[in-house]
Amino acid sequence: MSEPWILSPERCFDPDPSQRSLARELYISVEELPIVSPHGHVDPALLADPNARFGSPVDLFIKPDHYILRMLYSQGVNLEELGVPTRDGSPVEADHRQIWQRFADHFYLFRGTPSGYWLAEELINVFGVKEKFNSDSAQRIFDYLVDQLSQPEFTPRALFKRFNIATLCTTDSATSTLEHHRILQKENWGKRVRPTFRPDAVINLQTPGWRKHIDQLSAVSGIDITSYHAFIRALEVQRAFFKRQGATATDQAVIIPYTVELSDRESEEIFQRALQGGITSEEVNCFSGHMMIEMARMSVEDGLVMQIHPGSYRNHTDAIYQRFGPDMGADIPVSAEFTRNLHPLLNKFGNDPRLTLILFTLDETTYTRELAPLAGHYPAVRLGPPWWFHDSINGIQRYLDQVVETAGLYNLAGFNDDTRAFPSIPARHHLWRRVTCNWLAGLIMRGLLDEVEAYEMAKDCAMRLAKRAYKLGD
Amino acid sequence: MSEPWILSPERCFDPDPSQRSLARELYISVEELPIVSPHGHVDPALLADPNARFGSPVDLFIKPDHYILRMLYSQGVNLEELGVPTRDGSPVEADHRQIWQRFADHFYLFRGTPSGYWLAEELINVFGVKEKFNSDSAQRIFDYLVDQLSQPEFTPRALFKRFNIATLCTTDSATSTLEHHRILQKENWGKRVRPTFRPDAVINLQTPGWRKHIDQLSAVSGIDITSYHAFIRALEVQRAFFKRQGATATDQAVIIPYTVELSDRESEEIFQRALQGGITSEEVNCFSGHMMIEMARMSVEDGLVMQIHPGSYRNHTDAIYQRFGPDMGADIPVSAEFTRNLHPLLNKFGNDPRLTLILFTLDETTYTRELAPLAGHYPAVRLGPPWWFHDSINGIQRYLDQVVETAGLYNLAGFNDDTRAFPSIPARHHLWRRVTCNWLAGLIMRGLLDEVEAYEMAKDCAMRLAKRAYKLGD
Amino acid sequence: MSEPWILSPERCFDPDPSQRSLARELYISVEELPIVSPHGHVDPALLADPNARFGSPVDLFIKPDHYILRMLYSQGVNLEELGVPTRDGSPVEADHRQIWQRFADHFYLFRGTPSGYWLAEELINVFGVKEKFNSDSAQRIFDYLVDQLSQPEFTPRALFKRFNIATLCTTDSATSTLEHHRILQKENWGKRVRPTFRPDAVINLQTPGWRKHIDQLSAVSGIDITSYHAFIRALEVQRAFFKRQGATATDQAVIIPYTVELSDRESEEIFQRALQGGITSEEVNCFSGHMMIEMARMSVEDGLVMQIHPGSYRNHTDAIYQRFGPDMGADIPVSAEFTRNLHPLLNKFGNDPRLTLILFTLDETTYTRELAPLAGHYPAVRLGPPWWFHDSINGIQRYLDQVVETAGLYNLAGFNDDTRAFPSIPARHHLWRRVTCNWLAGLIMRGLLDEVEAYEMAKDCAMRLAKRAYKLGD
Repeated sequence: MSEPWILSPERCFDPDPSQRSLARELYISVEELPIVSPHGHVDPALLADPNARFGSPVDLFIKPDHYILRMLYSQGVNLEELGVPTRDGSPVEADHRQIWQRFADHFYLFRGTPSGYWLAEELINVFGVKEKFNSDSAQRIFDYLVDQLSQPEFTPRALFKRFNIATLCTTDSATSTLEHHRILQKENWGKRVRPTFRPDAVINLQTPGWRKHIDQLSAVSGIDITSYHAFIRALEVQRAFFKRQGATATDQAVIIPYTVELSDRESEEIFQRALQGGITSEEVNCFSGHMMIEMARMSVEDGLVMQIHPGSYRNHTDAIYQRFGPDMGADIPVSAEFTRNLHPLLNKFGNDPRLTLILFTLDETTYTRELAPLAGHYPAVRLGPPWWFHDSINGIQRYLDQVVETAGLYNLAGFNDDTRAFPSIPARHHLWRRVTCNWLAGLIMRGLLDEVEAYEMAKDCAMRLAKRAYKLGD
Repeated sequence: MSEPWILSPERCFDPDPSQRSLARELYISVEELPIVSPHGHVDPALLADPNARFGSPVDLFIKPDHYILRMLYSQGVNLEELGVPTRDGSPVEADHRQIWQRFADHFYLFRGTPSGYWLAEELINVFGVKEKFNSDSAQRIFDYLVDQLSQPEFTPRALFKRFNIATLCTTDSATSTLEHHRILQKENWGKRVRPTFRPDAVINLQTPGWRKHIDQLSAVSGIDITSYHAFIRALEVQRAFFKRQGATATDQAVIIPYTVELSDRESEEIFQRALQGGITSEEVNCFSGHMMIEMARMSVEDGLVMQIHPGSYRNHTDAIYQRFGPDMGADIPVSAEFTRNLHPLLNKFGNDPRLTLILFTLDETTYTRELAPLAGHYPAVRLGPPWWFHDSINGIQRYLDQVVETAGLYNLAGFNDDTRAFPSIPARHHLWRRVTCNWLAGLIMRGLLDEVEAYEMAKDCAMRLAKRAYKLGD
Repeated sequence: MSEPWILSPERCFDPDPSQRSLARELYISVEELPIVSPHGHVDPALLADPNARFGSPVDLFIKPDHYILRMLYSQGVNLEELGVPTRDGSPVEADHRQIWQRFADHFYLFRGTPSGYWLAEELINVFGVKEKFNSDSAQRIFDYLVDQLSQPEFTPRALFKRFNIATLCTTDSATSTLEHHRILQKENWGKRVRPTFRPDAVINLQTPGWRKHIDQLSAVSGIDITSYHAFIRALEVQRAFFKRQGATATDQAVIIPYTVELSDRESEEIFQRALQGGITSEEVNCFSGHMMIEMARMSVEDGLVMQIHPGSYRNHTDAIYQRFGPDMGADIPVSAEFTRNLHPLLNKFGNDPRLTLILFTLDETTYTRELAPLAGHYPAVRLGPPWWFHDSINGIQRYLDQVVETAGLYNLAGFNDDTRAFPSIPARHHLWRRVTCNWLAGLIMRGLLDEVEAYEMAKDCAMRLAKRAYKLGD
């Protein structure tokens, strides 16, 4: 065996010994709290089937992780060489040992990145790997992981319990029948694993195959969608269905968080043109902006928390999308604007105590300029945690430093891990808890908090803010 | 009595013991310097009347403070419950004890915010409160404050002296008769309390009641404003009047700092259309952009320092504005652009040594990208301090870290407190002084300054830069 | 002699003693490595002539340095008073002693700026100045420098060797005959001093004197440029010529990094209209956007690394430009956008392993939002170091903190000094090395790297990343 692999107990903490020691004490007080994961992309099938398995280390750690794929790709490793399946079924590398070796040979690329951090914590803390992952140890670690993954302690459900996850929310198409969630509900896992209503494919009139999605929505809702009104009714029916299956929230992804109010007649006209084909880009945007307000209206009525994830230019590289499909690491952020775009929505519903609207951003410039001021004024608005590229040590530190002074801590929505990578969930929550505790320790050191306040806030950050924002009860 | 309430003597300082000790020494050297407050919104009536009183603790700390109102409102406390008067006179909470209790019950919301910091410093250092402000102590502290506020040591003038304020500049409508400043001047307070010329209501052709403001301007200037030329002349007359009453500066608020030069004929045409009603938004913007250049021209001629505060989308929530009016915490920033927008103005007057143009921003992205480069080139340009949401420990630190490397310290305009909350003035200036001293200590630690330089720069930051930029003499 | 002038051996390092000590050890390991300077503006004539001299201290330190000129100008020192030559030959200050004194009198303006830092390091480490530079010491230091500059150890070539520069790339017009580089190549300095192909003057159809530049391109390439195709051919011929003279890269400056693909017919039509005069601004932009893609295509074919420096609004002050010309400190950044603008180019060539595209920015908001995500995905994209105003202690720290978590270290292009000021080269590289080592020490302290990794990464930052990105061999 080569070099031992050890995680520093002080990781993520400030170098100053006094701050570090305060950070550590605060962290100890929240380290073992249950995990609340109110937004993410774990496949519920993994948990619905008690016998589900993660597959090989490559299936688990590489193929589904767009953070890993993008970095390797950026340095000349083709997705074929990583075994990513092609849409046309043309063959790709099938030898998982060789893919694993390739990953190990390039693992130095992840130095100083959250992916590197999460992976180290997963391998060491979840799987018990003891030697440093590199070209030399790759095959031994592969063998070891294959063995671990075959044990009963490493099924998804076993890990779910070991991770002490109180609630995990998945993200599900508005047209889903939620068959996995129904199984989970029957087996008394319904409060642990909850769906989230995501209607992008039916709301965005430009979605490839939009008409097919509408037909599916007709089928699952039992409403024949021949008009805008029927469309709205079908969405309401499905929201109610999701709610019965445990959902407490919806989610929408848009490039620009544009909102606008259309008249019923305008909405109907655009919707009819969409049904017949031949819609303009401007109509698509208007309809999307209008549906943001409609979704807020429905949330006011049914109490589902509304989430908006704006600002990702999806599938920036046509060639990757055509060959491999979405979520391959080729999504690139664009600048965002909330103050003007959300004005129509907030002016109508932002003051309504029944609405909770959680805003995310990939454009950090909006933290101090727009998001913190909006959250620090509108009763409906809460700020989602640093998202995607910003879910990192520096990203979280910048977020806290930039939003709390204006929005306060209590207008934040706590933490989301937003992950597809199930075994990385504890690593991500622990990183957030470490960084928030270190930030609180910094405030104590600067005379801005006393310790009693800091211990409360550490718990708020770790779990309570998320539970409250997402209405996950006590 | 419950928990004692103490301010850390090391507050705002870095955790590192060496930096902290340097910061403290630097701070001691500037702590007692007189306060120069060249921009803010204190009501001059408070100081003109030697018998003026602040009213109850609610009148003093809650009702006029939009930072406090916005945070409480964001967490579901209605403005009615805080006693904020409605425009239509419909009744609101009148029991100040109950409002005060409500505030105390929600005081935890201000953890880690500048409002929380300022309030603690005011209660402890200005009023001598000794127990921590919370639900339990609220009524005792209320009684204590009522008693203090009835003492002669707590009149506005008494506090002005105790605060060691050398100069306080107020912000006054261009149509003001400056009656309070005239009283102050008679009583030899003219150098201590100075007006600032703010012509927004007459320059922005879209101001509600613009025509009435123009009539007022005619009345106070003695010039019948029937033409653009008469309008310009009236502004010049009023500027001269403000200058005689002690003004050294003007101030303008705009959403976008757009500048453009119109011909006399174009200006006259737009102005005539405005007088007759029926102006377009584009004409409003052109006229506003043109008047920025005209205001610069007048500053070149009469020597008044020109301030621009751009980028606030005022009254984002119609319902709040209609019920309570402006300045209720519902103003939200938008992104700003200076390089292209100010080009016409700077190209014409930016090189003129007679102009001082102080630029503010709510969009921190402009610090390194536009403002520091502009201030580091144009002789006329100085950078205003971090404004509004950014007047905070992190906000000031970011500002210094981002602008000084490019603009140098000597292109900054020192500190403004920009406050309506008179008793918070020392807390705000002390926070600025602490953060600048800590930043200087950091530069010493990094070998970038020697101590002699740092002591000079600490004094520059505390007072001298503001006096120089605002031409407040020695 | 007055105060001694000493540089702290710990300069640029964090105050925390443990981090500082790690930073210092890392720095010692890279301090003496050769300097690789793959992008800058040193005049090759200085090195081609073995007898070249730098002139007076004013010629060396003040006149050619737009950082120095801009700061002095911003505080009321006219460029005439600094001896900057006028375009019309009208007289300016000729007494270098007096200019030097003026500089010394204003040297306090540079406190806390990189210019102040570089200058101190040059005077102390390159020239051996021992007393602090100020009004009092100015004339003694002037005498001392005049004496030093007359010594054989202070010719450009002698300093080049003493600075241990492995490679210095200059920036040269596409129409250059590279006469200095040809001399250098003959004298075996060809690998040490390399040209860079900069075609802005012929690609930007709005360049003053564009037609004259085209005629020059015809002359040097031997191709009569009467058509778009001939233009492309002439560029290819010149690229090949530059490559033979040692070039490994091209460089383009644009305000907006817009890219668009035109058909051959559209390109030809625009080019013909340009030859005949009477082109529109929109055509200029289209052609420029198209030529970005053409330059990428040529790079794919000939292997020259492509650099883009966008976002500078050049010559913001007409009066300065008319009287003194460009590069006087009057260039101001504007906001930048890469995700949408580069989409056509990257979609076509971003996945091609033959292309290296190095992106720079003056808009730091693009670091986390666009540049790091692009570099962390596209095999062709590398991120240039912090540029111009951002080549500073805080600028470098922000860059590393913001890009590495998403792009990783290995998608960075190492360091550029980008300087015209030859004797500042070591100071700039040492500052970069100090800040990168301090940043690595911070990662060790936070448990994110082990020391073995950090020592490797320190070498990567110091030299290896630049050599690899710019294909400068081993």
